[in-house]
Amino acid sequence: MIVEDRWLLPEGIDEILPADARRVERLRRELLDLYDRWGYELVIPPFIEFLDSLLTGFGRDLELQTFKLTDQLSGRLLGVRADMTPQVARIDAHQLRRDLPNRLCYMGTVLRTRSDGFGGSRSPLQLGAELYGHAGVTSDVEVISLMLETLALARVGDVHLDLGHVGIFRALTRVAGLDADDEALLFEMLQRKALPDIRAWLDGAGLSRECGEHFARLGTLAGGVEVLDTAAGAFASVEPVAAALAALRETVEVIGGRFPHLPIHIDLAELRGYRYHTGLVFAAYVPGVGQAVARGGRYDGIGHVFGHARAATGFSADLKTLIEIGDVEFEAQTGIYAPVDADPEQVRALRAAGERVICVLPGAEADATAYGCDRKLVRSGDAWILEKVAVPAA
Amino acid sequence: MIVEDRWLLPEGIDEILPADARRVERLRRELLDLYDRWGYELVIPPFIEFLDSLLTGFGRDLELQTFKLTDQLSGRLLGVRADMTPQVARIDAHQLRRDLPNRLCYMGTVLRTRSDGFGGSRSPLQLGAELYGHAGVTSDVEVISLMLETLALARVGDVHLDLGHVGIFRALTRVAGLDADDEALLFEMLQRKALPDIRAWLDGAGLSRECGEHFARLGTLAGGVEVLDTAAGAFASVEPVAAALAALRETVEVIGGRFPHLPIHIDLAELRGYRYHTGLVFAAYVPGVGQAVARGGRYDGIGHVFGHARAATGFSADLKTLIEIGDVEFEAQTGIYAPVDADPEQVRALRAAGERVICVLPGAEADATAYGCDRKLVRSGDAWILEKVAVPAA
Repeated sequence: MIVEDRWLLPEGIDEILPADARRVERLRRELLDLYDRWGYELVIPPFIEFLDSLLTGFGRDLELQTFKLTDQLSGRLLGVRADMTPQVARIDAHQLRRDLPNRLCYMGTVLRTRSDGFGGSRSPLQLGAELYGHAGVTSDVEVISLMLETLALARVGDVHLDLGHVGIFRALTRVAGLDADDEALLFEMLQRKALPDIRAWLDGAGLSRECGEHFARLGTLAGGVEVLDTAAGAFASVEPVAAALAALRETVEVIGGRFPHLPIHIDLAELRGYRYHTGLVFAAYVPGVGQAVARGGRYDGIGHVFGHARAATGFSADLKTLIEIGDVEFEAQTGIYAPVDADPEQVRALRAAGERVICVLPGAEADATAYGCDRKLVRSGDAWILEKVAVPAA
Repeated sequence: MIVEDRWLLPEGIDEILPADARRVERLRRELLDLYDRWGYELVIPPFIEFLDSLLTGFGRDLELQTFKLTDQLSGRLLGVRADMTPQVARIDAHQLRRDLPNRLCYMGTVLRTRSDGFGGSRSPLQLGAELYGHAGVTSDVEVISLMLETLALARVGDVHLDLGHVGIFRALTRVAGLDADDEALLFEMLQRKALPDIRAWLDGAGLSRECGEHFARLGTLAGGVEVLDTAAGAFASVEPVAAALAALRETVEVIGGRFPHLPIHIDLAELRGYRYHTGLVFAAYVPGVGQAVARGGRYDGIGHVFGHARAATGFSADLKTLIEIGDVEFEAQTGIYAPVDADPEQVRALRAAGERVICVLPGAEADATAYGCDRKLVRSGDAWILEKVAVPAA
């Protein structure tokens, strides 16, 4: 669907032509209707904001990805949104200020200075749902379920769910007394799953033998649900790990019950979004697509920079990616060709009945199919009747 | 609907919260469905483009209004779209390259460095429809009709239609042999309806007495349809004016027939968009709103800069303005409150039937109305039944 002309459009920026735009619009509506049925209310955050607001809190990770502009009115620096999640968190905390849990969803274009998504896009059509104000596993399970329903609605097949929990690595670094630099270094090696590097670093780091073992083990803890048992044994001495493992276990049980055919993979060294995530993290993968097709996690406390700290969990995806890899069958375009002298009242009545009617313009007469029509209005005595036209095989 | 916090959002930039976002989404869908029934196909132009592409052709007028960015990948200057019409013209000319008339519509946010619209917005949600490849009055009439249907659907009342034709001023300047500077000066004075300035300038301009009279008259030719007769007499010696007046007359007749209660106002000195418009121009006004609520006109030849010159006419408006001034009645939000222990199968079935169901989270129990629900699931023996809840008066 991505029409990219190297001479006309910047790299990673696409425009969507009619046939694909119909698909985008249809799936967009179906997904927003899904979120509505789950109680997620639509918000429309601004396209640009003061850079400070955009990058506040967990937005800092996005600084490199954010296009900057100078506001001629205030002289201040503006950013073009590269992720709508921080904006929605700001809306929950600052504008809505509800005490009860709050469900919000969004759908809109974001822009990035560099491409890092599926197909090298720098302008994903980001959609997502966020649940604020509840810290328990039930809310994690709800947003994971809604993410999976999203993929099902987009007919994305063969989905695998990856679960992790940044609380484990966080607890291990605290127990080991790592400083920020060492934590960042270890984090980076774990992300690369660079076990030899981790071993070598641990040897020189002067950690206790037990702490060193913990990090070395963490890098290997990926697989089926049995990983949770292994981890429980390996990290028995680190108290906060037990809560994280219990949350993972409960999530696996409930999600596994609701989606019995879904392969669930545990990866305790998966630390994507570590800088702003605070608990369970999850991602959906499909074979043949290197990147997650949807992902999310818990990021409690995000609202505190806007004066209203809130527990939070949510997911996001790119609508254009979902259409690209999904298998939704879109109905063929239909329409009625109305000749120049057709009865305007009849045209009006057909449109009021939901029909698509093309009124041909004088001098632009052509075969009805050239206008994408499958029927035409033809005169029959005093009346106009609808007649099928032969549609050429595609 | 515009939520603007001076400390949080730049001037003229708004975010749309749930109640208003529902309205925006509903009207958005209804309008896109309307355009679909009229045969206008949706396109989704990119949010940013190379500045050259954005400002090509009639885009030059938008240079001051366009936010500029540097593309880190190409080092070239990008612009954030300030108007989608040039983008859609490029898509028609360059991407679609159809020979038959082509109907396209669009809906999306545009950004402007300075506010010049209703309510001082710098981020209108622009919608519009464009008809390419037909030069006759029938296509002008079609887009004017669709603009009026747009306003009717948004329940914008008391609409007045203003019609003009830039071909008249253009013909008069040609006959008078004005150079570009004089043309620009006179244009500016006509826009201000500064008749004394025009008189004074004409006295010193060395034009023939007849040409001088023409420009002085032009500034006065505004009113009902009788203006067309006055103009026919006044400009009888300037041949191309007759064709413009005939086009206006035919437009008045057809639109007047289709919309019998619509006040139509003729203003032959209305030259808005003169630099890119080439023929009939039109705008819809409502009492109490200083600016046009929708406007458009003919801009033939626009595609030639993209290698495919095409006749073109279209209109655009701001969805947010339409909601602000329109009178659409939006149905109240409904929903079902499901307690923590509600039957998941029943929740699923209710959602599948299109109901909005809020699954309350453990510890977040509250009155159903606090979650915007008008019913709740309650246990009745072995079953769960729906029970109405008293909704507090708004």
